[in-house]
Amino acid sequence: MTRIVTLLGTTPEQQTALGLAIAQWFARQQQRTLLAVPSPATSLQFLIGSSDQVIGWQPKWLSEGLAIAELLATESLNAAWQELNRLVEPYLPQELVGKVYAGELVILPGMDTLLTLNTLRVHYSSGEYDVIVYAGGNSQDTLRLIGLPQGLAWYYRRFQRLLDQLDLNAIANAIGGPIASAIMAANIDTQKVRERFAEAKEWVDRGVKIAADPQQLSVFLLTDTTAISTAQTQWLWGSAQQVNVPISEVFCIGEPTPEVRRTFAPLRISVLPKDWSNWQHLVSHLPDLNQLGVAPAPHEFDETQQQVRIFLPGFRKEQVKLSEFSGELTVEAGDQRRHIELPPSLKGKPVRGGKFEAPYLIVSF
Amino acid sequence: MTRIVTLLGTTPEQQTALGLAIAQWFARQQQRTLLAVPSPATSLQFLIGSSDQVIGWQPKWLSEGLAIAELLATESLNAAWQELNRLVEPYLPQELVGKVYAGELVILPGMDTLLTLNTLRVHYSSGEYDVIVYAGGNSQDTLRLIGLPQGLAWYYRRFQRLLDQLDLNAIANAIGGPIASAIMAANIDTQKVRERFAEAKEWVDRGVKIAADPQQLSVFLLTDTTAISTAQTQWLWGSAQQVNVPISEVFCIGEPTPEVRRTFAPLRISVLPKDWSNWQHLVSHLPDLNQLGVAPAPHEFDETQQQVRIFLPGFRKEQVKLSEFSGELTVEAGDQRRHIELPPSLKGKPVRGGKFEAPYLIVSF
Repeated sequence: MTRIVTLLGTTPEQQTALGLAIAQWFARQQQRTLLAVPSPATSLQFLIGSSDQVIGWQPKWLSEGLAIAELLATESLNAAWQELNRLVEPYLPQELVGKVYAGELVILPGMDTLLTLNTLRVHYSSGEYDVIVYAGGNSQDTLRLIGLPQGLAWYYRRFQRLLDQLDLNAIANAIGGPIASAIMAANIDTQKVRERFAEAKEWVDRGVKIAADPQQLSVFLLTDTTAISTAQTQWLWGSAQQVNVPISEVFCIGEPTPEVRRTFAPLRISVLPKDWSNWQHLVSHLPDLNQLGVAPAPHEFDETQQQVRIFLPGFRKEQVKLSEFSGELTVEAGDQRRHIELPPSLKGKPVRGGKFEAPYLIVSF
Repeated sequence: MTRIVTLLGTTPEQQTALGLAIAQWFARQQQRTLLAVPSPATSLQFLIGSSDQVIGWQPKWLSEGLAIAELLATESLNAAWQELNRLVEPYLPQELVGKVYAGELVILPGMDTLLTLNTLRVHYSSGEYDVIVYAGGNSQDTLRLIGLPQGLAWYYRRFQRLLDQLDLNAIANAIGGPIASAIMAANIDTQKVRERFAEAKEWVDRGVKIAADPQQLSVFLLTDTTAISTAQTQWLWGSAQQVNVPISEVFCIGEPTPEVRRTFAPLRISVLPKDWSNWQHLVSHLPDLNQLGVAPAPHEFDETQQQVRIFLPGFRKEQVKLSEFSGELTVEAGDQRRHIELPPSLKGKPVRGGKFEAPYLIVSF
């Protein structure tokens, strides 16, 4: 099983340095480790002392057990395109096969994150690495990536319910005309469609489990001692709770002030030297990354008290919105929406009240 | 006509400070100016001295002529969803209308950039602002955004050609079965489809013109004097050429070293004080932003010499790939692909050779 490690907070340069140190730490534990960074990998090039040499998309070994890769979107698209072509070619008319080349496709906005995700998925499934360290730089994008399984799981639940409610024949009649009747008559292999759907659902459920288990997906916070960096990293912590990812560790560049300690309590704080660009030196400051601290749960059900306690560190009352959709609790905070499926004992009961006692939103039934 | 100003380089915090100073500069010229930043807008909150107050998605006036807005993805999605619903509702069967609510949708990876784009488009089209300053923070994403018209224009050209080559009837026969014949028979309003296509194409062409005109889209580089920041910003400069966006201005935090001057020649360099977080102070260091310096053209055709000179600052020979697809030149560099449509005098002629003389790739016919 491959473990994924990623970082939230501070600058892309600092994330790359810490990512490299963490990757080195695991490599020293005889773990085959891959460090993946976005393109351009300029800061990684400078850190490893080869500012003139491109890192490249294909992972290459930097030292015993430590590989590095630059997540070039163009190369990722080439690889994904070939795979996609193999999948859809049998269904394409001969006139269209091989008419569009991977090498000519232009990257559009929004594609980078999906291509990053796909490349990480390929490395993850390859079984070639024990640990993959992803130093994404842009923490907002990293949040979306780690929140994907949870997001997709909701879309599945939601649209499954929607489809269950719909009468497909009624819709076909409403659209009317020859297309609808043709589609209904065209003998679509519904059994196969259902199987594919179930298969994909299984993948998503596996992703949700991985994201909720700090031993499989370890997300570390990174801050320095300034008020602004502390506030930003705290916001990222709260947002990670919103995608159901528990966090136990904070790395602080420089000796943490009482304010930093207060902000991130009860998490474990590891202190990094201010000269963070000396990454070899950082390695010796890392704690045992196989023995994580205790991570507060993103939410807890108290069935005797008939309550849900939702952990939202760093948000104030006016930044949190609670609503109900299709029998689930919906919490909006940190530019994220979280849908909480209720246990059978609370499902369908009317909400009596929501009370915000920082850092908890307490919902009573 | 609204002018768009955006920044490439250094950290999100520094971009926000410079963005605020630039917005203030335009506001003082009696231009109604909007500064838009991504969420969380923590650094903007700190800069304007209200670290406890959320900026919010709806633009609000900070001072005479200067509005600020935080590009919250959740709010952008709500607005976009309502608009989308209005467009598609007439075509939906009654059973599906109003079944999915904006307030419950979860943001997935890749959606942020598209939502940012849509919100900027709405502000741009509203006519409420003379200038929109977008301090995106993540320069790679900003590059993709400003490259969108150019990217879409290529997809239009490419797929128009592909469709022209295809015999749709032959494809319908190849797929066979009742669906294909139904579709062919279903009396699709091809005239209307063609009109819509032409309409969208017009939008894209307008976008390409805006992106290529520094008076309409002004992209400024931002660097400090360190080797790593200089290298990164130079890479962004080259990448902006790859999406056909000319650049004339560099802002340097601190007195530029000879190395910085060499790197960005022949661009105009404006020096900013090292204490960049004092943004009011930055305003007085800005040049006249209505009188831009000369921006080298991303490429030039020399029809007498039968050459194309492609401007690629910051790339080395081994980082540039030249190929030909469907009669256009394709240049791969900076994790971008550029397709160059050739003028009639060069079109269809065989390429005699490509020579890289930094910063130019010279292609001879």
